Amino acid sequence: MTALHVLDLVGIFVFGITGALVGVRKKLDVFGIQVLALVTGLGGGFIRDVLIGVTPPTALQDWRYLVVPIAAGLLTFFLHPGIGRVERLVNIFDAAGLALFCVTGALKAINAGLSPFSAALLGMISGIGGGVIRDILSGRVPVVLRSEIYATPAFLGAGIVVVAAALEYNALWVPIVAALICFTIRLLAIRRGWNAPLPRHP
Amino acid sequence: MTALHVLDLVGIFVFGITGALVGVRKKLDVFGIQVLALVTGLGGGFIRDVLIGVTPPTALQDWRYLVVPIAAGLLTFFLHPGIGRVERLVNIFDAAGLALFCVTGALKAINAGLSPFSAALLGMISGIGGGVIRDILSGRVPVVLRSEIYATPAFLGAGIVVVAAALEYNALWVPIVAALICFTIRLLAIRRGWNAPLPRHP
Amino acid sequence: MTALHVLDLVGIFVFGITGALVGVRKKLDVFGIQVLALVTGLGGGFIRDVLIGVTPPTALQDWRYLVVPIAAGLLTFFLHPGIGRVERLVNIFDAAGLALFCVTGALKAINAGLSPFSAALLGMISGIGGGVIRDILSGRVPVVLRSEIYATPAFLGAGIVVVAAALEYNALWVPIVAALICFTIRLLAIRRGWNAPLPRHP
Repeated sequence: MTALHVLDLVGIFVFGITGALVGVRKKLDVFGIQVLALVTGLGGGFIRDVLIGVTPPTALQDWRYLVVPIAAGLLTFFLHPGIGRVERLVNIFDAAGLALFCVTGALKAINAGLSPFSAALLGMISGIGGGVIRDILSGRVPVVLRSEIYATPAFLGAGIVVVAAALEYNALWVPIVAALICFTIRLLAIRRGWNAPLPRHP
Repeated sequence: MTALHVLDLVGIFVFGITGALVGVRKKLDVFGIQVLALVTGLGGGFIRDVLIGVTPPTALQDWRYLVVPIAAGLLTFFLHPGIGRVERLVNIFDAAGLALFCVTGALKAINAGLSPFSAALLGMISGIGGGVIRDILSGRVPVVLRSEIYATPAFLGAGIVVVAAALEYNALWVPIVAALICFTIRLLAIRRGWNAPLPRHP
Repeated sequence: MTALHVLDLVGIFVFGITGALVGVRKKLDVFGIQVLALVTGLGGGFIRDVLIGVTPPTALQDWRYLVVPIAAGLLTFFLHPGIGRVERLVNIFDAAGLALFCVTGALKAINAGLSPFSAALLGMISGIGGGVIRDILSGRVPVVLRSEIYATPAFLGAGIVVVAAALEYNALWVPIVAALICFTIRLLAIRRGWNAPLPRHP
């Protein structure tokens, strides 16, 4: 059970919570909520593993990867707060999942032998994949396309990990700090309503 | 031409019909209907094969896998009933496709060496994949998320096949009975309006 | 840098422009526009490479494949026309991307050893994949399902390449003419409002 495993499982757990919360908000039943928790928790990793040629994906080879999102779904089903506060919680847990997945995705891509720039891109794809699947399935505009800083902090977090690896500096705190930076920027962007430039509309 | 092949092709045929019927309902032209028949019939198997590392997917290696959904699409285009009765037929054929795909998906996953629990999960994913792609492409709420028993009978059908295989009991009637159980539960859930528990809304 | 590479990169560039233009139309910010340009430019190729078992996909192994859609997104962000003329430009560039991707997809499928019919089908999937992902992410009805000639010219373009390869006739003008035929039919279908037959509605 390496640090990479732990970060991966925590990422799956928090993404699973966001899927279940969106299911609660859409008034799905317990099974619909479980399905959303599973696909949101595992979706980004499935895309990542298929793209780097790791098949079957890790989540289908290790039972812990299945227990974690199911537990996240059940916990959310029984303990979720009132609907009014759901959306804010979705955003916070989603930021945590984004931060953890971009870092673990970049590490797995490096292990698979991808070049630094490609590894950073795959980290970003891993980070945004689960949320995109969750939002499309539940009929929301994908968060990555809404007018907020989302893909950029994921690319930044993945990039920090990739640069450290290219410099052969493999301390454990690098992925943790990279995830914290991604998480903090994403949360600040939500809280302060940061927006990136819009195109001119003549 | 094994029993697995036959079940697989019948599953593709009935899913192809559901895709074409949804196309008829959305008033698509003959090509849009063919595209929906193809992606609905082949989508679940593509996802299944990519996840277990069978590339190119079986459907791209065997021409029968392409003729079957095209035939389903053309048949539906020329012989479909009045719009009023389309939705009920979609549900029935979709239940049949779900039942057949969860069983063949589980069998293929076992052959690929997945653990029992993972094989049951992959069977479920194979079963629900085609319908999810069909519903997202045509702008419907995915049936797996609507308040009905859907993923659960697929997981049950796949589970029966997996348990029998784990006990090294490989009689031909096992997948057939497993598919019939999944199909019957799904149909009963539709007819009787069975619903799973909803989350509390304080 | 072979002819196949050049056609592939030009296809990614024009699809990237369509993604960015749709982002401009949906009033996304500069990052949302970049994400749409990337997934539209690279999506079809990702699906194609995963289906023929080329992992990691070419676009993750070669930095040029990443620079091209980013350049397309930035160019569109700064130079896009007034909103009123965006939709027409989307259609024209989309037709060009469709034509180029169906041809390069068919060539890659032949190189991967697929049978002629499967190679034509994979070419068609490559051609329509990027646009489907763009339209689903941005909440548009996928162009392939709207009542217009779309998948058919892609299948035709891919088919011309496949037939020439089966006859062992590998002149450079074959893919170029095949792409031009696909592009011309698609544009004529848009301009003249060609529609395929609709199902009877009794």
